[in-house]
Amino acid sequence: MTPEFVHPISVRYLEVDMQGVVFNMWYLAYVDDAMTAYLAARGMPYDELIGSGHDVQVVHAELDWRSGLRWATPAAVAVRSAAIGQTSFRLGFEFRRDGEPAVTAELVYVCISTEDGGKRPLPAALRAALA
Amino acid sequence: MTPEFVHPISVRYLEVDMQGVVFNMWYLAYVDDAMTAYLAARGMPYDELIGSGHDVQVVHAELDWRSGLRWATPAAVAVRSAAIGQTSFRLGFEFRRDGEPAVTAELVYVCISTEDGGKRPLPAALRAALA
Amino acid sequence: MTPEFVHPISVRYLEVDMQGVVFNMWYLAYVDDAMTAYLAARGMPYDELIGSGHDVQVVHAELDWRSGLRWATPAAVAVRSAAIGQTSFRLGFEFRRDGEPAVTAELVYVCISTEDGGKRPLPAALRAALA
Amino acid sequence: MTPEFVHPISVRYLEVDMQGVVFNMWYLAYVDDAMTAYLAARGMPYDELIGSGHDVQVVHAELDWRSGLRWATPAAVAVRSAAIGQTSFRLGFEFRRDGEPAVTAELVYVCISTEDGGKRPLPAALRAALA
Repeated sequence: MTPEFVHPISVRYLEVDMQGVVFNMWYLAYVDDAMTAYLAARGMPYDELIGSGHDVQVVHAELDWRSGLRWATPAAVAVRSAAIGQTSFRLGFEFRRDGEPAVTAELVYVCISTEDGGKRPLPAALRAALA
Repeated sequence: MTPEFVHPISVRYLEVDMQGVVFNMWYLAYVDDAMTAYLAARGMPYDELIGSGHDVQVVHAELDWRSGLRWATPAAVAVRSAAIGQTSFRLGFEFRRDGEPAVTAELVYVCISTEDGGKRPLPAALRAALA
Repeated sequence: MTPEFVHPISVRYLEVDMQGVVFNMWYLAYVDDAMTAYLAARGMPYDELIGSGHDVQVVHAELDWRSGLRWATPAAVAVRSAAIGQTSFRLGFEFRRDGEPAVTAELVYVCISTEDGGKRPLPAALRAALA
Repeated sequence: MTPEFVHPISVRYLEVDMQGVVFNMWYLAYVDDAMTAYLAARGMPYDELIGSGHDVQVVHAELDWRSGLRWATPAAVAVRSAAIGQTSFRLGFEFRRDGEPAVTAELVYVCISTEDGGKRPLPAALRAALA
């Protein structure tokens, strides 16, 4: 995996459960932050996407845990564009603890209209950001 | 999918985002509640599992959204035992809004020791609950 | 404090932090659920409130912890109407663990218009529910 | 209020509810992050506090909303040391949206032993950090 973009993660104390690791759902919170930062860094700020009448929705997510993030331990997530379709795209995420791979994720997003919620082809600016 | 167990979900107002549907990560919160309730209903309360020196950890999760849960709309999740291995098991989840399938999920859990965190064969009581 | 309404709480595993007690912010999640249930039980379902063009917003919250809620321990919160003003009202909450008082909270809500977000006098149905 | 320390806040999309503002409980998540950063910046990293056999617990919190934080809008929180007692201390927080005061909070923390959970006098290093 050649990371195209690395986003820092600041694990919150409240996200760590009694097992001492970040509870599984919070990885999807990190993913959302990282996806937004990734698109912005590639020239597609989320407010411009919305302004163009488009939004994205998650239709598929999968996560694999080798180990977990911990509190007060450096963490980051690498994002890469995994596939671009007509109305959807796939992003890959690799979470690292102290620089070591800990968790991976892949999400599929569909592009929808902010007006009627229906599927739309990816607008050119979004497609360019992902390419 | 023949549901073996249906667990009610009470969507919290705070779980619904500006798109008007439950934000994706909260499904993993519902899954955790439903898994615990499912095991308890099948004779394996979580505190007994812990008391026997075992715990479970999620190593894989995948979710597919057809639509989403909403606030103030009846919701529930059906749980079924999908596969039982030597040290792991897989559960399937079907989220329903107003009785209609909205989201599905599959999670793989490994059984670990509460002492050293290492993998362990599923104890007999857990295996029986899943069978 | 004469409780007028008791709402059950099902503590989620993820809400408990490494100190073994529910992390402080989640009490405000419980409060929101309990407030909605309280108003509904008193004849003012939230969707009817919204339907009448009104909504409520929290403007003040205070919480006092004597001890904390724990996972897998019976919990509930008692709600009472503490004060009713022209455009606002105050509710009192008492969280109980195994029936014993653990945490108290008081919240002040203002009534707003769903159209412009401006303050509004409490509508008659809401006032009656709180009385 | 003379802010002694300003901590940036990155509002997550999921923290914003259908009213378009950050749901009330998340301010306590921000407070926890800011408190930890504040103590670290003043020479009392949390892991050193824990290492010395001490921890802190929130016993009182109060929050006042003038307005709310929003998604994709610059936000920060100023922290100041409001009072130092024998076994407890009080911190003040001012949340700002686009530099304007939006929400204030005050929290009281007690110092406890990590061994028995009992109250302890503030250790010298913590007292110095707060002074």
